Amino acid sequence: MARRYTAAMLKPCHAEARLRVRYAETDQMGVVYHANYLVWFEVGRVEMLRTFHLPYSRLEQEFDCMIAVAGAEVRYRSPARYDDEILVRTRLLAMRGPVLRIGYQVVRAGEDRLLCEGITTHVVVGRDMSKRLLPEPYRAAFQNLLTADLTA
Amino acid sequence: MARRYTAAMLKPCHAEARLRVRYAETDQMGVVYHANYLVWFEVGRVEMLRTFHLPYSRLEQEFDCMIAVAGAEVRYRSPARYDDEILVRTRLLAMRGPVLRIGYQVVRAGEDRLLCEGITTHVVVGRDMSKRLLPEPYRAAFQNLLTADLTA
Amino acid sequence: MARRYTAAMLKPCHAEARLRVRYAETDQMGVVYHANYLVWFEVGRVEMLRTFHLPYSRLEQEFDCMIAVAGAEVRYRSPARYDDEILVRTRLLAMRGPVLRIGYQVVRAGEDRLLCEGITTHVVVGRDMSKRLLPEPYRAAFQNLLTADLTA
Amino acid sequence: MARRYTAAMLKPCHAEARLRVRYAETDQMGVVYHANYLVWFEVGRVEMLRTFHLPYSRLEQEFDCMIAVAGAEVRYRSPARYDDEILVRTRLLAMRGPVLRIGYQVVRAGEDRLLCEGITTHVVVGRDMSKRLLPEPYRAAFQNLLTADLTA
Repeated sequence: MARRYTAAMLKPCHAEARLRVRYAETDQMGVVYHANYLVWFEVGRVEMLRTFHLPYSRLEQEFDCMIAVAGAEVRYRSPARYDDEILVRTRLLAMRGPVLRIGYQVVRAGEDRLLCEGITTHVVVGRDMSKRLLPEPYRAAFQNLLTADLTA
Repeated sequence: MARRYTAAMLKPCHAEARLRVRYAETDQMGVVYHANYLVWFEVGRVEMLRTFHLPYSRLEQEFDCMIAVAGAEVRYRSPARYDDEILVRTRLLAMRGPVLRIGYQVVRAGEDRLLCEGITTHVVVGRDMSKRLLPEPYRAAFQNLLTADLTA
Repeated sequence: MARRYTAAMLKPCHAEARLRVRYAETDQMGVVYHANYLVWFEVGRVEMLRTFHLPYSRLEQEFDCMIAVAGAEVRYRSPARYDDEILVRTRLLAMRGPVLRIGYQVVRAGEDRLLCEGITTHVVVGRDMSKRLLPEPYRAAFQNLLTADLTA
Repeated sequence: MARRYTAAMLKPCHAEARLRVRYAETDQMGVVYHANYLVWFEVGRVEMLRTFHLPYSRLEQEFDCMIAVAGAEVRYRSPARYDDEILVRTRLLAMRGPVLRIGYQVVRAGEDRLLCEGITTHVVVGRDMSKRLLPEPYRAAFQNLLTADLTA
């Protein structure tokens, strides 16, 4: 899995979200509870969409379309702690029909050391949970990103 | 507030829910994070409805009706800790039109000492968030409870 | 309770925290799950301390001192929704020995309408959970705030 | 990944935990928010230890030893919903020095259909976060499980 991550994230990320670790996110081990990184990945994902002026909320409201989570892989490298300022770097890795793959790197602001990295797989669905393609403006924006990466 | 709680809960509870403290529910203080007690109150509330064979899920699905939270008061007495077995004692305190008041006591199983107590206020609403009365089977069950308390 | 809130928050807040509603914070009612407002109050509290250059993390690390939650009262006025940009306005209301009272107002950025308001009561404790006074730099900063309010 | 899961969980699980989906665990998609399955995996893990009369809490308190999460892989098959009664089937997959691998299957009680499955990787650490072996009673119990599987 390690090699896949490295390969996936060698290129620059498509968006960077910033957040502050909340007390509620720690556990009695004195570090961030591991499930919260999945919440942060979602913060990163949403920020990536906002960067293209294509907010996720519009997808649900205007297009009646949702991006469901089909899979997740997380590698915990070094614990984040309460009050840390965190960057979530997000990168679209692939889009094949209704399936998206997105990669994440979590670091402390101003540091290079990786705290956590992961990949999520998504399926675009309608209200009835049946698969569908992403609506056009979103699809075009994603395709542009992937094409730009290939030619870079 | 203390007197109100005591008065409210002198009579036996209407339902008792049992749960085990999860690691995810602790924080770096080494105790249960305070917001989680509101989640446990909800577990107690739902258990009370199930006790009458009137599950909350049926209320949403069959009657298109939701019990929104309008207010909450919580007193933290003594911290719950990881892996504690917890009882949430729940009691319907009042029903006036679309407004419900419900009381809670949280204790460790097998102990008398109060860990936390609270009261939540609710408004029954439809899908459009406008106020409405509880559907009949629920309303009748609640009225029976309150009448039984008066005559006990 | 309503009157108390109004009286408490007539004066300007001592700090304002900004956050974006996360998908994880919504529930199937389509609005923010009510327990999360307590998490946001904490974000506001922590931001107030940071405003005085007295971060909460330093209190735990340097002074071995914690601000435990002893009580909370919340009034839910109007639901916050996914992706809303939220302001949490926080105000120190009182400090009596080891006891603090703090008030909160939650609004959508750019709007006046109150979504939620609340008061939390805290007890300053050491690692052994015994009551103690706030360490001096924190105590002085809080006292200054309260005095400034009286003379304003 | 799919093949690995199947292979891993062909044999019967080592423990089964039962839980009820909480309203707090749903999101506005009307299903359980995906990060909560990691919390449920932990409920399963803890239940497995309790089955051997070797609670996780004792590990932290008596042996000053923690089981940190180093990695997680999750496959979401079909959404769990509010009020569902859920079974989390847990199985120790491997122990190599300080590293553990544990597998999970999440189903609705009384149904065979898989809702979610996953694998977590753990490193046993001391308070200082340095790697160490599991304390003897835990180690022996785990070794017995793995040996029993081989000879079964």
